[in-house]
Amino acid sequence: MKDLQKFIDKLDTLDFKDMYENDFFLTWEKTDDEIEAVFTVADALRTLREKNISTKIFDSGLGISIFRDTSTRTRFSFASACNLLGLEVQDLDEKKSQIAHGETVRETATMISFMADVIGIRDDMYIGKGNKYMHEVVNSVTEANRDGVLEQKPTLVNLQCDIDHPTQSLADALHIIHEFGGIENLKGKKIAMSWAYSPSYGKPLSVPQGIIGLLTRFGMDVVLAHPEGYEVMDDVVKVAEKNAAENGGKFTITHDMKEAFKDADVVYPKSWAPFGAMEIRTDLYGKGDFDGIDKLEKELLAQNATHQDWVVDDEMMKLTKNGLDTLYMHPLPADIQGVSCEHGEVTAEVFDRARDSLYKEASNKPYIIAAMIFLAKQKDPQAALKALLERGKARHFE
Amino acid sequence: MKDLQKFIDKLDTLDFKDMYENDFFLTWEKTDDEIEAVFTVADALRTLREKNISTKIFDSGLGISIFRDTSTRTRFSFASACNLLGLEVQDLDEKKSQIAHGETVRETATMISFMADVIGIRDDMYIGKGNKYMHEVVNSVTEANRDGVLEQKPTLVNLQCDIDHPTQSLADALHIIHEFGGIENLKGKKIAMSWAYSPSYGKPLSVPQGIIGLLTRFGMDVVLAHPEGYEVMDDVVKVAEKNAAENGGKFTITHDMKEAFKDADVVYPKSWAPFGAMEIRTDLYGKGDFDGIDKLEKELLAQNATHQDWVVDDEMMKLTKNGLDTLYMHPLPADIQGVSCEHGEVTAEVFDRARDSLYKEASNKPYIIAAMIFLAKQKDPQAALKALLERGKARHFE
Amino acid sequence: MKDLQKFIDKLDTLDFKDMYENDFFLTWEKTDDEIEAVFTVADALRTLREKNISTKIFDSGLGISIFRDTSTRTRFSFASACNLLGLEVQDLDEKKSQIAHGETVRETATMISFMADVIGIRDDMYIGKGNKYMHEVVNSVTEANRDGVLEQKPTLVNLQCDIDHPTQSLADALHIIHEFGGIENLKGKKIAMSWAYSPSYGKPLSVPQGIIGLLTRFGMDVVLAHPEGYEVMDDVVKVAEKNAAENGGKFTITHDMKEAFKDADVVYPKSWAPFGAMEIRTDLYGKGDFDGIDKLEKELLAQNATHQDWVVDDEMMKLTKNGLDTLYMHPLPADIQGVSCEHGEVTAEVFDRARDSLYKEASNKPYIIAAMIFLAKQKDPQAALKALLERGKARHFE
Repeated sequence: MKDLQKFIDKLDTLDFKDMYENDFFLTWEKTDDEIEAVFTVADALRTLREKNISTKIFDSGLGISIFRDTSTRTRFSFASACNLLGLEVQDLDEKKSQIAHGETVRETATMISFMADVIGIRDDMYIGKGNKYMHEVVNSVTEANRDGVLEQKPTLVNLQCDIDHPTQSLADALHIIHEFGGIENLKGKKIAMSWAYSPSYGKPLSVPQGIIGLLTRFGMDVVLAHPEGYEVMDDVVKVAEKNAAENGGKFTITHDMKEAFKDADVVYPKSWAPFGAMEIRTDLYGKGDFDGIDKLEKELLAQNATHQDWVVDDEMMKLTKNGLDTLYMHPLPADIQGVSCEHGEVTAEVFDRARDSLYKEASNKPYIIAAMIFLAKQKDPQAALKALLERGKARHFE
Repeated sequence: MKDLQKFIDKLDTLDFKDMYENDFFLTWEKTDDEIEAVFTVADALRTLREKNISTKIFDSGLGISIFRDTSTRTRFSFASACNLLGLEVQDLDEKKSQIAHGETVRETATMISFMADVIGIRDDMYIGKGNKYMHEVVNSVTEANRDGVLEQKPTLVNLQCDIDHPTQSLADALHIIHEFGGIENLKGKKIAMSWAYSPSYGKPLSVPQGIIGLLTRFGMDVVLAHPEGYEVMDDVVKVAEKNAAENGGKFTITHDMKEAFKDADVVYPKSWAPFGAMEIRTDLYGKGDFDGIDKLEKELLAQNATHQDWVVDDEMMKLTKNGLDTLYMHPLPADIQGVSCEHGEVTAEVFDRARDSLYKEASNKPYIIAAMIFLAKQKDPQAALKALLERGKARHFE
Repeated sequence: MKDLQKFIDKLDTLDFKDMYENDFFLTWEKTDDEIEAVFTVADALRTLREKNISTKIFDSGLGISIFRDTSTRTRFSFASACNLLGLEVQDLDEKKSQIAHGETVRETATMISFMADVIGIRDDMYIGKGNKYMHEVVNSVTEANRDGVLEQKPTLVNLQCDIDHPTQSLADALHIIHEFGGIENLKGKKIAMSWAYSPSYGKPLSVPQGIIGLLTRFGMDVVLAHPEGYEVMDDVVKVAEKNAAENGGKFTITHDMKEAFKDADVVYPKSWAPFGAMEIRTDLYGKGDFDGIDKLEKELLAQNATHQDWVVDDEMMKLTKNGLDTLYMHPLPADIQGVSCEHGEVTAEVFDRARDSLYKEASNKPYIIAAMIFLAKQKDPQAALKALLERGKARHFE
């Protein structure tokens, strides 16, 4: 199969040996080669599946999911990725467990991992918590593996934390790569990562942070746009600035949506909560001050309401490089004006035109997750891909 | 294996090519040959499993279930069918998802389907809703497949809607076929599909509707019996009348349970709610008028209570063709008088005598669901059955 | 593989033919040979998995779990065991089912079992209920299999009942066997199964009962220690006495924790509720007297609070045979003083020193469960182990 060989050849040019038996927390903790290896394996696995060739590398084994927030697409993406590789998903539903009985993270992490090859965690609600929790889990299972308690160390896949949303940003980046015909074509392209109005408040910061932290490394001209007061985490802004400087790209912040959209090759307008407010919210939650949380929520909704003009309509799209044809992105679900809400992030005309593209963007996520697992579990991924091809087992018996 | 060949030979005489890559909504949307193909493949799959031969046609892939009402037997039947064919069940628990956040059916359907081969839906609570919702789902994934978003189109299995309950009625019909020694022996046999008293109200109409809509096509003498005011959906009555006319059978409605039972070869007594009341209930629900729903519920319970004499006891059974030996059917669980309630659908003496038969009736459901999937997924089902036999992989390694 | 042969040779010396197509309720219903077969198969399956050899004996099939109490480790142990053998777990979530609608145990048990090879049940909350419920389930599926309703009889694994917790006690015993270098080395070793203080009340009796009912058969010197009023079930005390008498061991009860710890080779300190109080609680629950239950709970907590000195600290450990190095056991999660509570079962210094050992103890549980299933499902387990080795399928494709 010619297509597959192309991906294997690409992998041969990359250095990603440190991904083996490693974990995936934040994209900016990975080298450029490692990031490109994820894209390449994702496309290779998709190619095999489309050719009806089984990509099961596990005959048995569990993929554990821990969702500390509701989820549809990430839940199904993780389940799909595990299933594609031969792992059975077992959800740790904390309400059905004894975790409330004073058990430590270390203990729970070990107890669920005796036959786990992967742990996927979504924990994005409180600043300073989610990523930290994932590290606690990884430290626990690493120690348990080292001490002979676990036969294998499950690999962690960050399914969204307070800092980054790597499976989303990588799926998004892969979509841009596909749309622009190769990672090398991203250089110099302008992307507007913009805040947009939503009638709900408190949407995670991990999406804009993930985007500016990732796309700046491809030499893109990344513009972060938001009303004053909707700043993202300062540490991630520094990552974006450093990436841009090192990769010949640009990173700027503006408070003018139109300026951001002007001549943009890609627009990514999406609501998020101000980082400062989320820090306050985390403190209030820590103190159990639920009245304070309610009050904060009302203030934020009122503040949001003053920015209902941050909506993407055809007029806004016309400011971009290719007008109505410019690539419009969103992690979904979007707040569609006149459909799911009175005022929202985007008008139905813009959304409807982009629908197929948005759904294709989302379709990358299962493959990105599977690629992360594959690279953490296979010592020689190129050989494994070749072996899967040679084994030639049909996914669907025909 | 002689048995399997018999089923393959039968399939060779039937035309069911339109089932490939198609969906299963209502039995009366399928041809007689298609219905018989379902029975035949169900029995073929059972034969293979009983011979300890694996029937996995999928090496990986997901079977999505969406249950909008509590369920035990249908949930386990769907899980069993998927497992039998090699698909892993992933339940879309709408409470754990972000569907409430204004997401459209089209979007959710696509987002969960990237690696889904089947979607099973139970949505039977509101008149005019469930079947419509299933069509929305199918239209969405069909479009997404056509537009290149989905690599495969998952097939829909209607696990019960407001109109029909095809996996139930086909499992029931297959039981009758087994009991009477062949589909050709159903001609002229009388079945009493009768209302019976239950202390609860609002039981789905899809069971009686499914039965009269299906069994009339085998040339049976189908009698629908219920107290005045417990009419079923008029459209389905018309289907039953048309079927009877076309197939040399009979379809009559009576308000006298004894008349229905007289000389019946099969009795199927079961509670349901009046269609008219369910329409009112749907309207009240749409308006959010929960006081109105409570009031309606009380009225219906009071109305039900005037019909406590609609119970199957030995006296009633003695009116039938074979007396106490006549085939008594129920989709389970039944309201058993003196066991689960004071007054109910059936006395313990009748139920206990029929128990094994009732459980065998239920045992068909996983195979019926698996057959629906098999026929939608295999281009050449006869060849696939032969290939499974030749592959000869043990289900349980011995 | 030399290691595996050792286990096969051991099995050749044991008589466990009655385990085939049987169930696992209580350890004392099994012979010594049968118990040793469980240990041996557990270690054999672990050996195969550690050598990356697949132990799937099922190509498809369901493992049903019914948890009538929250659970993390038992839930994951059961899921791991099923996955290891090739069964897909399907949880019967009674809240999502129609069981409340007056369905009998017999009916539910049959309806979920059409393609079930195993049913694992945890039901430990009410005295006289859990074990009885498991027998009802087994009687139902046995009858359904005999009557031709079920193609196979699922085997029951008791995941904890009101009387015994066999998967826990066998995992514990296997840990002791590993630590002492063989089952033959347990003879004469002293174990202190001791009550310890916990700020919660009502912890299951099945752990201490399981331990005294099992370890007395290896000729150990088993001391059960608890404050007056915290008696365990009398029937199990009789089992322990009988076992000790028959196997050259000792079984004594003391109300002095120090006396129990003195010169002990193993200590197992853990909170539990008084049997008498649990009987009263079951009666109150049966009457729906929730005020009475609240009152009882307060009384028990007050009674517990008078025994806060029943805590394992270094001073206590120094009384034992090997001082701080003596084997400390617990089923987890433990109430760790100063960590998860102010006063608890054990101090952090004792717990932290034992952590790795405790986690290894827990790691036996998936293998114990898998061994129970294996022995119930394989007619010739030695041949099956050899065949798995010869098949040599990699668990993780490398």
